[in-house]
Amino acid sequence: MDRLNLTMLTDFYELTMANGYFKNGLADKIVYFDMFFRKVPDNGGYAIMAGVEQLIEYINNLKFTDEDINYLRSKKIFSEEFLDYLKNFKFTCDIWAIPEGTPIFPNEPVVTVRGPVIQAQFIETMVLLTINHQSLIATKANRIVRAAQGRSVMEFGSRRAQGYDGAIYGARAAYIGGCVGTACTIAEREFGIPAMGTMAHSWVQMFPNELEAFRAYANMYPDNCILLVDTYDVLRSGVPNAIKVFNEVLLPKGYRPKGIRIDSGDITYLSKQARRMLDEAGFPDCKIVASNSLDEYRIRDILVQGAKVDIFGVGERLITSSSEPVFGGVYKLVAIEENGRIIPKIKISENVEKITNPGFKKVWRFYDKESGKAVADLLTLPDEVINENEPYELFDPEFTWKRKIVTNFSVRDLQVKIFDKGKCVYKSPTLKEIRDYCLAQTETLWDEVTRFDNPHRYYVDLSKPLWDIKDKMLKEYSYIRNKNIAK
Amino acid sequence: MDRLNLTMLTDFYELTMANGYFKNGLADKIVYFDMFFRKVPDNGGYAIMAGVEQLIEYINNLKFTDEDINYLRSKKIFSEEFLDYLKNFKFTCDIWAIPEGTPIFPNEPVVTVRGPVIQAQFIETMVLLTINHQSLIATKANRIVRAAQGRSVMEFGSRRAQGYDGAIYGARAAYIGGCVGTACTIAEREFGIPAMGTMAHSWVQMFPNELEAFRAYANMYPDNCILLVDTYDVLRSGVPNAIKVFNEVLLPKGYRPKGIRIDSGDITYLSKQARRMLDEAGFPDCKIVASNSLDEYRIRDILVQGAKVDIFGVGERLITSSSEPVFGGVYKLVAIEENGRIIPKIKISENVEKITNPGFKKVWRFYDKESGKAVADLLTLPDEVINENEPYELFDPEFTWKRKIVTNFSVRDLQVKIFDKGKCVYKSPTLKEIRDYCLAQTETLWDEVTRFDNPHRYYVDLSKPLWDIKDKMLKEYSYIRNKNIAK
Repeated sequence: MDRLNLTMLTDFYELTMANGYFKNGLADKIVYFDMFFRKVPDNGGYAIMAGVEQLIEYINNLKFTDEDINYLRSKKIFSEEFLDYLKNFKFTCDIWAIPEGTPIFPNEPVVTVRGPVIQAQFIETMVLLTINHQSLIATKANRIVRAAQGRSVMEFGSRRAQGYDGAIYGARAAYIGGCVGTACTIAEREFGIPAMGTMAHSWVQMFPNELEAFRAYANMYPDNCILLVDTYDVLRSGVPNAIKVFNEVLLPKGYRPKGIRIDSGDITYLSKQARRMLDEAGFPDCKIVASNSLDEYRIRDILVQGAKVDIFGVGERLITSSSEPVFGGVYKLVAIEENGRIIPKIKISENVEKITNPGFKKVWRFYDKESGKAVADLLTLPDEVINENEPYELFDPEFTWKRKIVTNFSVRDLQVKIFDKGKCVYKSPTLKEIRDYCLAQTETLWDEVTRFDNPHRYYVDLSKPLWDIKDKMLKEYSYIRNKNIAK
Repeated sequence: MDRLNLTMLTDFYELTMANGYFKNGLADKIVYFDMFFRKVPDNGGYAIMAGVEQLIEYINNLKFTDEDINYLRSKKIFSEEFLDYLKNFKFTCDIWAIPEGTPIFPNEPVVTVRGPVIQAQFIETMVLLTINHQSLIATKANRIVRAAQGRSVMEFGSRRAQGYDGAIYGARAAYIGGCVGTACTIAEREFGIPAMGTMAHSWVQMFPNELEAFRAYANMYPDNCILLVDTYDVLRSGVPNAIKVFNEVLLPKGYRPKGIRIDSGDITYLSKQARRMLDEAGFPDCKIVASNSLDEYRIRDILVQGAKVDIFGVGERLITSSSEPVFGGVYKLVAIEENGRIIPKIKISENVEKITNPGFKKVWRFYDKESGKAVADLLTLPDEVINENEPYELFDPEFTWKRKIVTNFSVRDLQVKIFDKGKCVYKSPTLKEIRDYCLAQTETLWDEVTRFDNPHRYYVDLSKPLWDIKDKMLKEYSYIRNKNIAK
């Protein structure tokens, strides 16, 4: 897709800091940043990684145009040497990321960037914006799809999205999370996500009456005839007229009806009655599509009440993740190289949960070989080796007395390298492959983790060597802080 | 700004319907659509109109490229005649809109489109998407700015926005709503919104200690020195080090400090203590900037508690309007022309609040001449004249016994024509002008209407002639419905 130049879509402080690093001789200092998040939206048990392909596109297009440089010069705070540096900017970082569609958990690095501090710092805003947005929507979609228990979920939210990319990439993320299609036409043209749609109420209003509107539609699209039955009265007008048209127009042409759509009123009651009427009229194969402010909670409730819905159209509550519209990914400095050695860095906070995991790390996922289920994730130093043939002792990084020895497991290094010294070394799977992978990976989670409410906390542990480093740094910090205060 | 071609950013049903209208000889039927909303987000008393300039850009760029046509052909449901029609598509509608920055209220048309049904229907998704998004953020920003009671509010949310346009146009809308600036660099380059920013925690971590990090920054930017004081400990390290650097670096160069920023911890307590320390050190002019998950409620609370904050940086809760992230604008058919006569149309619903106001209408705002305050809005037929020199009787369209005679008023026709037969006839004011207009117009609202919680409902009334038409249509509908049911 043609993109406008997004290099300037960055927080202004990335530029003031870059200028500062440049001036202070720190431009080429090698640093490590982790992107991670602290909490799953909606108090869920897991999130779904998404947005890596767009992050790659952004990095591949990263350049400062003359327009950018002239704009920056007009701010009168950047040196000409620095502007020259930007003009000749060449991205040389290494980037690792967890592949799209993977279930991800709080406090593990989902993206890691290694490279000169100006570059690694500069991309902060776009790394976060891209991954936060798509992971938010993929996570929400996955919840909604699970609520539908095997029924299809369509993404219908473009008109209520937060901006154009909110609609376009939101449709992409919703598909990754498990939706079967979208109403957003451009998302099919760009990404191949099946786009579907039939009629609005205005179609029905444009004809002298509902029956004529249905007839006209059925004649146009006999092979894909889904009629919107709630413009006037679902049970007394919409469904009877639909049945009439199915009999009068479709059957003589040799077609079966595809469905009816209900967009208002009590979905449970209306769908049950409509199902009965359609069955009695000889159309048990005619699907019922329901829309109107749905989300995972409402879908769960109406299914518990026995609603007869085959396809859910979900709009604003999916495309904005309205119950929690923020994915709180952060991007933190975790290490600096000094003379080739990696020196871990830590961000301290009064809020214990805001203290970072220091150092350059690897993320491993343990799967139980017998059940195929994911047991825990483990952060280690980059050179640690995990032997699948030997028991491994995991322990809780907060409550270190909580220990568990895992046996008969396989491990997987979750991050893949996507950029090597600035060159893209990763080919994104097709969107269909990402979606299939996502649905398969979600199956590796225990039901306890996938509950909507009050899920079991999935473990993200630290290896003993990594924990030792963090513990030592916290103690040193405490010592220095008390010394500072004393002085 | 270079935009990608957004013509295909439309719900797929707009295309299936267009094809249907084309085939059924309805392509050139003249219709009227209104965009309106039913409820102010956050249960507020008013919203702020925004996004008109982007809507104009979209319409001006509306065209079906070969790529679009080829994609549509591949769907195998559109006739070649229809695809030819799209290829030669020329927009010929009239469009009226309420200008950006205007306070708007439920159930009044904020955009009205008149033209051939295919065209007027086709733009539905983008009209809604554009106006819904920016009005959502402008409305939220206006609430937050009011909570700050004259203190400055900066938009800081790019990294948590829902997609790139969510950040870019969100920054634009936030500025319209009253923010003084943004951290989003591209929003300054594109729209001239002042972009500001200083340092992240990583800047402080890049130096051997906080004092050296502050020194380096103060040396770089002595004329705009704002130091982030919460990397280690605000009161025991950050503020004392900042004061030291102000004295050591800035004063000898002849500069005063601009500010300190606190991004974590208890803002009320920390800002009071920091204020005292800065004052005692001789820097009463040094501003305190606070950020960290702020919104209108938190700002109100900490100000009630006496927090000493001069500038608020507001991020995710503004850029996503997180407490209610959906602006529920809808786009409804309200009239059809038959032989040059305008025939009103109504959408009936079991939910009374979902019944539309039929017909082509004008929107008037009544201002009390003495106080300058807005008294009520009134929807009328297009040819009604309101004489400012005579008393006018307003009545509640639901409870028609509630009546009020207004005198000594001026009226204003709120909608302006932005397209005439497909040609843009409106020049957007500058963004600064829109912002000033918004802040001035907000002042015309009574305090009762601008309360955060439980505001007084502002009246949007129907004129007697319009009310008569609606009442007649409802009665006719009721008659037809009962007849249908009986048969």
